[in-house]
Amino acid sequence: MDASYITPFVKSIQNVFSTMLQLPVTVLDPTIKQGNSPSHDVSGIIGMSGDVKGSVVLSFKLDAAESIVSLFCGERLDPAGSDFADAIGELVNMVCGGAKALFTQTKSVSISCPSVIIGKDHGVSLPSDVPCVLIPCTTDCGEFVIEVAIRENNQNTTTQGRAAAANA
Amino acid sequence: MDASYITPFVKSIQNVFSTMLQLPVTVLDPTIKQGNSPSHDVSGIIGMSGDVKGSVVLSFKLDAAESIVSLFCGERLDPAGSDFADAIGELVNMVCGGAKALFTQTKSVSISCPSVIIGKDHGVSLPSDVPCVLIPCTTDCGEFVIEVAIRENNQNTTTQGRAAAANA
Repeated sequence: MDASYITPFVKSIQNVFSTMLQLPVTVLDPTIKQGNSPSHDVSGIIGMSGDVKGSVVLSFKLDAAESIVSLFCGERLDPAGSDFADAIGELVNMVCGGAKALFTQTKSVSISCPSVIIGKDHGVSLPSDVPCVLIPCTTDCGEFVIEVAIRENNQNTTTQGRAAAANA
Repeated sequence: MDASYITPFVKSIQNVFSTMLQLPVTVLDPTIKQGNSPSHDVSGIIGMSGDVKGSVVLSFKLDAAESIVSLFCGERLDPAGSDFADAIGELVNMVCGGAKALFTQTKSVSISCPSVIIGKDHGVSLPSDVPCVLIPCTTDCGEFVIEVAIRENNQNTTTQGRAAAANA
């Protein structure tokens, strides 16, 4: 993956969290994800498509997610409720929207609606043929991770071809 | 949600499963999802964006996912491995690609890379302001569910506006 796609996410996460939550974020060194997924309790996932194709995942342990949502919404929310999931979805939406606006070259990229996963110790797997960069983040509310797995969209014929074949 | 977006998913799931797995699928009556998410063990999620924006989720209990992946790949795979997740991702990719090709009106729609969640009893929440249709399916390998939450993309200024404001 072109490293120029990582800096926008680092800047955007810091920007969104400082602007919307007044919560400074310390970003540790990004690494290439190897092997199995780390496990999480809460994940917000958004897809990107167009000139760039991939997925972005913002993942938390439950404690950190509860504290961050509480800062974001001004009140403690029940993790089983739809407002909690909507808040996590809105955070990942803002981070992706902000990062997209910072891509260095003009790209036609659109982002999907967010999906939010809640379940103790789940793993999120992104396609193994797309390099995935893990960006660990720490805050006073706890730690979280951003996973970015995107690629230039010039390799999309294989899966679409297989899908077309399946539906011929 | 326009009901004309549901039929393509029903047709595509039957087409993909019969073509790729020789597994007939009985589709039960779709319902509007109400309240909390049902819990699953394995979910494949894909985002759609462009003229239509949303998410599609294919969810299984572990037993059913293992049997279906086994049929798809010709061998039993370890659910902890990346090949298992890639197989689930490829299934949801084919179902979405096939459905997209069947949308009645010409739409410019692109689909993201799939994300695959593995974790006992997780829930998947889609944005609460987008109607979500649950399509229950039964097969000889067990049951699964497709959730489709998509809308025409003429309402995307709010979240993108908020994202832009957060990054101004």
